Amino acid sequence: MEPYTLYYWPTIQGRGEFVRLALEEAGVPYRDVARAPKGMPQLEASLDFRCEPLAAFAPPVLRAGELLIGQTTNILLFLGARHGLAPRNEKGRLWCNQLQLTIADIVAEAHDTHHPISVNSYYEEQKKEAKARARDFCAARIPKFLGYFENVLAANPGRGNFAVGSKLTYVDLSLFQLVAGLRYAFPKTMARLEPQWPRLAALHDEVAARPNIAAYLKSKRRISFNEEGIFRRYPELEK
Amino acid sequence: MEPYTLYYWPTIQGRGEFVRLALEEAGVPYRDVARAPKGMPQLEASLDFRCEPLAAFAPPVLRAGELLIGQTTNILLFLGARHGLAPRNEKGRLWCNQLQLTIADIVAEAHDTHHPISVNSYYEEQKKEAKARARDFCAARIPKFLGYFENVLAANPGRGNFAVGSKLTYVDLSLFQLVAGLRYAFPKTMARLEPQWPRLAALHDEVAARPNIAAYLKSKRRISFNEEGIFRRYPELEK
Repeated sequence: MEPYTLYYWPTIQGRGEFVRLALEEAGVPYRDVARAPKGMPQLEASLDFRCEPLAAFAPPVLRAGELLIGQTTNILLFLGARHGLAPRNEKGRLWCNQLQLTIADIVAEAHDTHHPISVNSYYEEQKKEAKARARDFCAARIPKFLGYFENVLAANPGRGNFAVGSKLTYVDLSLFQLVAGLRYAFPKTMARLEPQWPRLAALHDEVAARPNIAAYLKSKRRISFNEEGIFRRYPELEK
Repeated sequence: MEPYTLYYWPTIQGRGEFVRLALEEAGVPYRDVARAPKGMPQLEASLDFRCEPLAAFAPPVLRAGELLIGQTTNILLFLGARHGLAPRNEKGRLWCNQLQLTIADIVAEAHDTHHPISVNSYYEEQKKEAKARARDFCAARIPKFLGYFENVLAANPGRGNFAVGSKLTYVDLSLFQLVAGLRYAFPKTMARLEPQWPRLAALHDEVAARPNIAAYLKSKRRISFNEEGIFRRYPELEK
């Protein structure tokens, strides 16, 4: 099979990480192109209508043969169907997509805790507003979203501790990443609240222990969380 | 055919409007259930795992026979395939979904111009921050997103002035709604900038003139823009 090409920022996990986790779990070859020498111009070309008739608005972008696919949940919809990371039936496929979109919503809100006013200004220029937004995020939004996902796990009649049915889907991989990211960014909040969500914590550990994911997390391919990504640890935002 | 049931807030266009437009263009019967007497408890039940095994995080939610579908772009993915409002081939279907996700991104940012800190507080409590966020939205984000969509229209090799291929898709309906909403919320900004995006303006007018959409826009089913929805006209945000 022709390897996939992933176009994403080379120094952060960001939204690209949800795609990387699906590719790693599926065990399919891919080139993380912007991390290689001279890769950035290729990333930029994927966003440029002079180079691509279906240019994307922003990374991540995945090239799969003739297809150029943008938007994280759209890439996962594609990979899920192609690599057995989503149910084959319409109901299960739509439910996976719905859950992934809800994950995307909290990921966007997590980003806005450090950039509540403008993505074009530095965090330091909007720190006061970031404190207010992060306070609301920790007090109201994390509990609302993670409580919802805990209910999703509890309501799933399938065997095992998966979000959808009795097999791992890309939604489980993304919930792992969400929990890991929130623990990194808001360790005190998560330590205090997480006992409410035992199924989510168990799912995080089960995903981390899967052979392909465990190997990935130990590899150099896994970029560390840092303060340029979506999940950033700024202790002053958690006071 | 059994009519669809739409669960959405009864007094606003909001995200539900993207679904309403698709249903109206397709000419399929639907019950906008929360606008009918005793409808609100049914909306609430669609979000409650005690009532629904696949409860949604938030409206809009669409019931289609055995299916209960949440998240706007997910509902449109379903309706597009079922009612000829998206291409049948994988490439076109993914491209539609990708564009709709990008529309969802600017819609979320439009919402945050009046709620940059917390959805749990009133606009009046975050007006100062809203002014800063709206300034950035009008100066940088509207041009970036609408410039992108103008390029999408320009790069489409299909006949006509559609976003995808040579036939109307749900993306065209959503671009109509986006332009209409931004004109409502930020009239001065749009009047100043819109000449840069002639294809988008033409698409807006073409969609508005389609028989089913024109009839809908004149009907009582179309809720007016107002200051409880996503696109709000607060003149102080546009100074």
